[in-house]
Amino acid sequence: MFTIGIDYGTNSVRALVVRCKDGAELGTGVVNYPSGTQGVLLDPKNHNLARQNPADHLFGLEKSIKLALAQAKKVKGFDARQVVGLGVDTTGSSPIPVDATNTPLALNKKWSGNLAAHCWLWKDHTSIKEAAEITALAAKIRPHYIAKCGNTYSSEWFWSKILHCRRTAPAVFKAAYSWVELADWIPSVLAGIKDPKAVKRGVCCAGHKALYAADWGGLPDKEFLAQLDPALADLRDRLYEIAHDATASAGTLCAEWSKKLGLPAGIPIAIGEMDVHYGAIGSGVSEGTLVKIIGTSTCDCGVVSADKTVADIPGICGIVKGAILPGYYGLEAGQSAVGDIFKWFVEGVLGDVKLHAILTAEAAKLKPGQSGLLSLDWNNGNRTVLVDPLLTGLTLGTTLYTTKAEMYRALIEATAFGARAIIERFKEYGVPIDRVVCAGGIAEKNPMLMQIYADVTGCTMLVAGSSQACALGSAISAAVLAGAQPDFATAQKKMTRLKKVSYKPKVGNQKIYNQLYALYRQLHDSFGGVNKSADLSRVMKDLLALKVASSR
Amino acid sequence: MFTIGIDYGTNSVRALVVRCKDGAELGTGVVNYPSGTQGVLLDPKNHNLARQNPADHLFGLEKSIKLALAQAKKVKGFDARQVVGLGVDTTGSSPIPVDATNTPLALNKKWSGNLAAHCWLWKDHTSIKEAAEITALAAKIRPHYIAKCGNTYSSEWFWSKILHCRRTAPAVFKAAYSWVELADWIPSVLAGIKDPKAVKRGVCCAGHKALYAADWGGLPDKEFLAQLDPALADLRDRLYEIAHDATASAGTLCAEWSKKLGLPAGIPIAIGEMDVHYGAIGSGVSEGTLVKIIGTSTCDCGVVSADKTVADIPGICGIVKGAILPGYYGLEAGQSAVGDIFKWFVEGVLGDVKLHAILTAEAAKLKPGQSGLLSLDWNNGNRTVLVDPLLTGLTLGTTLYTTKAEMYRALIEATAFGARAIIERFKEYGVPIDRVVCAGGIAEKNPMLMQIYADVTGCTMLVAGSSQACALGSAISAAVLAGAQPDFATAQKKMTRLKKVSYKPKVGNQKIYNQLYALYRQLHDSFGGVNKSADLSRVMKDLLALKVASSR
Repeated sequence: MFTIGIDYGTNSVRALVVRCKDGAELGTGVVNYPSGTQGVLLDPKNHNLARQNPADHLFGLEKSIKLALAQAKKVKGFDARQVVGLGVDTTGSSPIPVDATNTPLALNKKWSGNLAAHCWLWKDHTSIKEAAEITALAAKIRPHYIAKCGNTYSSEWFWSKILHCRRTAPAVFKAAYSWVELADWIPSVLAGIKDPKAVKRGVCCAGHKALYAADWGGLPDKEFLAQLDPALADLRDRLYEIAHDATASAGTLCAEWSKKLGLPAGIPIAIGEMDVHYGAIGSGVSEGTLVKIIGTSTCDCGVVSADKTVADIPGICGIVKGAILPGYYGLEAGQSAVGDIFKWFVEGVLGDVKLHAILTAEAAKLKPGQSGLLSLDWNNGNRTVLVDPLLTGLTLGTTLYTTKAEMYRALIEATAFGARAIIERFKEYGVPIDRVVCAGGIAEKNPMLMQIYADVTGCTMLVAGSSQACALGSAISAAVLAGAQPDFATAQKKMTRLKKVSYKPKVGNQKIYNQLYALYRQLHDSFGGVNKSADLSRVMKDLLALKVASSR
Repeated sequence: MFTIGIDYGTNSVRALVVRCKDGAELGTGVVNYPSGTQGVLLDPKNHNLARQNPADHLFGLEKSIKLALAQAKKVKGFDARQVVGLGVDTTGSSPIPVDATNTPLALNKKWSGNLAAHCWLWKDHTSIKEAAEITALAAKIRPHYIAKCGNTYSSEWFWSKILHCRRTAPAVFKAAYSWVELADWIPSVLAGIKDPKAVKRGVCCAGHKALYAADWGGLPDKEFLAQLDPALADLRDRLYEIAHDATASAGTLCAEWSKKLGLPAGIPIAIGEMDVHYGAIGSGVSEGTLVKIIGTSTCDCGVVSADKTVADIPGICGIVKGAILPGYYGLEAGQSAVGDIFKWFVEGVLGDVKLHAILTAEAAKLKPGQSGLLSLDWNNGNRTVLVDPLLTGLTLGTTLYTTKAEMYRALIEATAFGARAIIERFKEYGVPIDRVVCAGGIAEKNPMLMQIYADVTGCTMLVAGSSQACALGSAISAAVLAGAQPDFATAQKKMTRLKKVSYKPKVGNQKIYNQLYALYRQLHDSFGGVNKSADLSRVMKDLLALKVASSR
């Protein structure tokens, strides 16, 4: 028996055919979105805007699955008739305005030229004002709404985006019968669901992005929404009452798509989750094991048994029951930019993509502290633990001799310090972290970065066995749903693995990084507003002293 | 009548033949120092070290004058027999250990391989510890010694360097009969002086760099020196009792050099001064007119009549009677790196010298505040007003879209903010600044930078008429000494001029730069240790707000 995981990323969609008994990956197909700039619709006048064309999603759905199947068919023993289920993960929160037939407005000629009618990609930051407004209102009248998401509602999330649409593109808002997260919409397409109210919504997006919790009766109440805008209160009736964890099914494969794809009609479709959440499953997340998906940005996922009590953790993006694994609280944290920062420096500033490899080699020769540099990893704001998009990058300690390799390494170290801040925050609030499993291209390809992460955090860094952990996780969810695996724990055991390589902290490096991290925290707390009477007079001097000491 | 000004820079020496009646420049000769890296002896293991080979100084002296004379001889009316005087300026503090015959140790085979036996170039920063020691001792037992140099003795200065030599190269120290500043040594060579005690010392170097003041009996007293090291107290007897302003003569041209150069024997040689001081004269310095010599670093020179009382100004490098113009206090401030910062970023980090022009053009298109960036100009520490070499550069406000042109402009703006901090400090303490005259290649070649300086400081920026203001100032001093001009004021009026171009502050830009300067001061005061309980939580947000406002 086989399942297919379909993983919608920022620039492309990937389908992965997986053997249920052992997680073997038989075929994969990747399709780049044809629209916009690498699949993202941009506004040259507004750097904050990032949208996606739902037509790309449909095009990629069909093509990626066909490519994956074509590859799998070359493997002995594979038979498309033995595909028993489909799973989908996507970026999020990436809501789409849809009409009453569950069709995205952007697919209608009338609206296709309007960026507001497209999918509002996770990294769209146009809604900063609205996020602040929602945070302020919740703090005032519904503090429990935001207590589980670090007391701050983000501009990247569902309600901020919809409220921004209402304010800046009222015609689109009016034309939208409902809004559906991409993670819920793709399964609904496969299931042939034509009514937005019939779309099965995942608690993953609902809980993490839309202030949904069974405890308070689902989505935010109408009184709350009406104070933001009466139209939001009206919209609530056209959204959903209940959101589901991965024990539920999103539907079964409809005749139309069965025919298109050459797959058995009626096979179950797993509830959609966000890419990193299924990625966490595909990387072997469990209680005590933190999964870091390191890409353009980073998501850190952990789980805690739903039988336990989890404290509200300040600055953690979300604590949602059932969001990752059924029966567990799903915990999510993250860094707004990681790979994107290196890309910015190497390609944007230095203007030469070839320098990635050269600088990595040069930076690897440097010892911790040797450059005298210290950077903040805030080029795209800070998601965890400050939850503040209005923060920016900083590099300190430059001299007339500072090299680009030193600056490159300082940026890598900055992201490692950001990672440590997250791990420390989890631990402070009683979430156990015994192991860290990293997934994503950077984890596989950059041993220097991985060693720095180990040295900075003091944790051994393991690497997920699959290079397609998100798609694999989706396929695992489909396998459990289809009964090809008895439960998630067994499925993870059978279907996931680790790479042989691992990175252990080096005591000497840890010592220096502890000192650098203390300086990082000084800058972090001062510019981040945690400490409003900071004495920074020693920062540059301490760095110079470390530089002298570690150059010996 | 003609005089020749000889200007020793960091990488080359220039001679300039000047007509005394109108300052016309008839011939010039430039000689690059043959030794080291662009004339500077470096230690790959110690970035702080910077020395020069006295053999280069002698080689350049003869060759540059001959080149200048050869060019002048092509001008109708010039006759080498009508050269009536010579003037010399050099970098400083650049002391040379000499033997009892006034010969630099480095010219002796026994010592030529020892970097400590060479000329300790102004920008040598090996003596940071010794400077701190001298500062601490003076603060304790002789506070008046450092009250006129910002209460801080610098690692770039005379005693720090000699004490460092004593500590780290005791054999060289022992072999040195005396130490002579390069600005005093070159005139003594031309005058054929073979006894260090007979070398006429200028009050410019003595007062600014060696804690000399007539008020307290010349150089620091033996008790003070002995507490640093008894050997320094012994050395004092082999240095000098009196230092002179530019009314004195350093001697007359000796037969040997008269023959070498083909110039009349016995013509007077002006007292040596530091390059920027004679440069200030050559740029038209007078009471109310600040001269900024903008190069790799910046020197800001002002004068106040010796009849008046000048307060001790915290952070100003020196206030020395007679140092620039006789009859005036000479005031010196400066920025440790200006052109060097741009050079570092463009050549060191970006690795392409051609980008200077490209980035200048792109940066010129940006509006103030538009980049959201803010930098500190401390890549080589901060000379004025913090007097702290242990400070480093910083750039803040980077996003994933920050361009190299924006970073380049932010560095230029940072040096402008540093310039404003100096002007404000002067004004706070009652030194009038009505006009600012800039000299140096950057002032002539970079209109964008000059406009930014005008907009940031609120002062109209004028440009010195001569591209060789330092050599011209030396020639003016020689003209006055030789009686070819009656006094400095008249000589400056006749022999100096301004370029036609000037840069007036633009009100709109000033408004934004006032806000940016306030943020710069927050970082400056916080990292500089002026404010030890800083609230920096608004810095990034205010920059982002300015960015939005100025992008409109």
